[in-house]
Amino acid sequence: MKKIKSDYPEVYDAITKLNDAVFNGKALDYKTQKLIAIGIVASRCDQSATEKQMRSAMHELNVTPDEIADVLRVVLLLSGMPSFTKGMRILEEIEK
Amino acid sequence: MKKIKSDYPEVYDAITKLNDAVFNGKALDYKTQKLIAIGIVASRCDQSATEKQMRSAMHELNVTPDEIADVLRVVLLLSGMPSFTKGMRILEEIEK
Amino acid sequence: MKKIKSDYPEVYDAITKLNDAVFNGKALDYKTQKLIAIGIVASRCDQSATEKQMRSAMHELNVTPDEIADVLRVVLLLSGMPSFTKGMRILEEIEK
Amino acid sequence: MKKIKSDYPEVYDAITKLNDAVFNGKALDYKTQKLIAIGIVASRCDQSATEKQMRSAMHELNVTPDEIADVLRVVLLLSGMPSFTKGMRILEEIEK
Amino acid sequence: MKKIKSDYPEVYDAITKLNDAVFNGKALDYKTQKLIAIGIVASRCDQSATEKQMRSAMHELNVTPDEIADVLRVVLLLSGMPSFTKGMRILEEIEK
Amino acid sequence: MKKIKSDYPEVYDAITKLNDAVFNGKALDYKTQKLIAIGIVASRCDQSATEKQMRSAMHELNVTPDEIADVLRVVLLLSGMPSFTKGMRILEEIEK
Repeated sequence: MKKIKSDYPEVYDAITKLNDAVFNGKALDYKTQKLIAIGIVASRCDQSATEKQMRSAMHELNVTPDEIADVLRVVLLLSGMPSFTKGMRILEEIEK
Repeated sequence: MKKIKSDYPEVYDAITKLNDAVFNGKALDYKTQKLIAIGIVASRCDQSATEKQMRSAMHELNVTPDEIADVLRVVLLLSGMPSFTKGMRILEEIEK
Repeated sequence: MKKIKSDYPEVYDAITKLNDAVFNGKALDYKTQKLIAIGIVASRCDQSATEKQMRSAMHELNVTPDEIADVLRVVLLLSGMPSFTKGMRILEEIEK
Repeated sequence: MKKIKSDYPEVYDAITKLNDAVFNGKALDYKTQKLIAIGIVASRCDQSATEKQMRSAMHELNVTPDEIADVLRVVLLLSGMPSFTKGMRILEEIEK
Repeated sequence: MKKIKSDYPEVYDAITKLNDAVFNGKALDYKTQKLIAIGIVASRCDQSATEKQMRSAMHELNVTPDEIADVLRVVLLLSGMPSFTKGMRILEEIEK
Repeated sequence: MKKIKSDYPEVYDAITKLNDAVFNGKALDYKTQKLIAIGIVASRCDQSATEKQMRSAMHELNVTPDEIADVLRVVLLLSGMPSFTKGMRILEEIEK
């Protein structure tokens, strides 16, 4: 993000403003939104985004492995086995 | 699902068992998992699944439009404008 | 495809040639490849392509509803419930 | 899957039951369903799942490289060049 | 977008700012970015977004059907036949 | 592609013909089509295809980093943050 900030400051500003608008919802707390974020990226095959979302949820918000596993259960039902096993493997590597 | 139950009972039983295992998590309540489900299907271009998830969340669990809008904010950030506007349009039609 | 043939004949020719190369494989017969095609499009949220593939498989190759349901079982495992239920609903409507 | 079995046994049981229901179809044999599975995962950008499906198909069921290449032909037509070339590259690496 | 503007003004503002930052690039003109947008949404199975992007490109920027067809050629190569034929069908309906 | 050429020459020929038909459009130049290609692959989570498309655009057609960043702005709006940041990271690594 450093390069975006220095080279494309108007894009950086727009992302910052978007991020604020997204995570200051009317009804849900930040932790619930973060769990939703994990569900969305784990449902796609985006390994690096999934790992980043899981790590920040665990470090910033003390989200537990069991809570992430409960997110991945929903992924299993709605997006199938490959997304689920990939998500569980990423979680296991983070826990080591 | 009626046809699946009558014609493919072993698939129906497996889905029922899977559904139970998914929504009886260790840490998250049913409502949070349901919000995650809305986020996942709205992030894809699956209109009918999104509508179904939103309706059941609102009717079974009293999820409010503002709560769903907060889910869609996360969808906007992680999956872009088309998924967000489609989700908002579905929500608006349900509210009518 | 009529419009493509008249307005963009070089694209039409390329598609025809590609189609021939795809469905004259070395090892698998046309029916198996057609079942694979149904699995791929049903795994995505592409309703019109799924219906088209199912119809042509049933009419040209006498693929049975039970064979298509067996394709959709694999879709259930690898791509989740929404793709599976959508595929089963399309199959049911074709059978009517 | 070991961790899932020990930590989330009810999820593990549900997956086992689902797997049995999926691969004991009414009409198609296991090998055909396995080829469909390869087509589905290769159509997405899921490299690890594609490799796993190809390896187990080749080792458990004696699926040949030409048969997998015939699956990838369908992927080329329905999902485009990047999925096809990625699938061919994975196949080539397995064959070495 | 009216409802978003009235009910979630901070989200509306963030989207407006993002939109400005996106379409005031350093190097590419608006028309080229619009053609890229058509390519992206047509590559997914998002019919309504594809139609909206095509219409606004044709009405605001005088993009021609042949230019859109050239976008769809790239879609054919990178995302396969179903996305291409769906895009061509939408284009044909707009031209009527 | 060497292996495809030697082992599956009819597939190789079909791809060559398709490639020619795609990149010899009626209205758009090769560079514009190449930028569209980058937008499409960057919108998906296909890292290797994105890198390949960016590299060939920069080396064959002197596409600049600012032009690619303008493509990625459209990706940000239509496909969300994870695709955008992944695309920017790939671009940055190529520039090193």
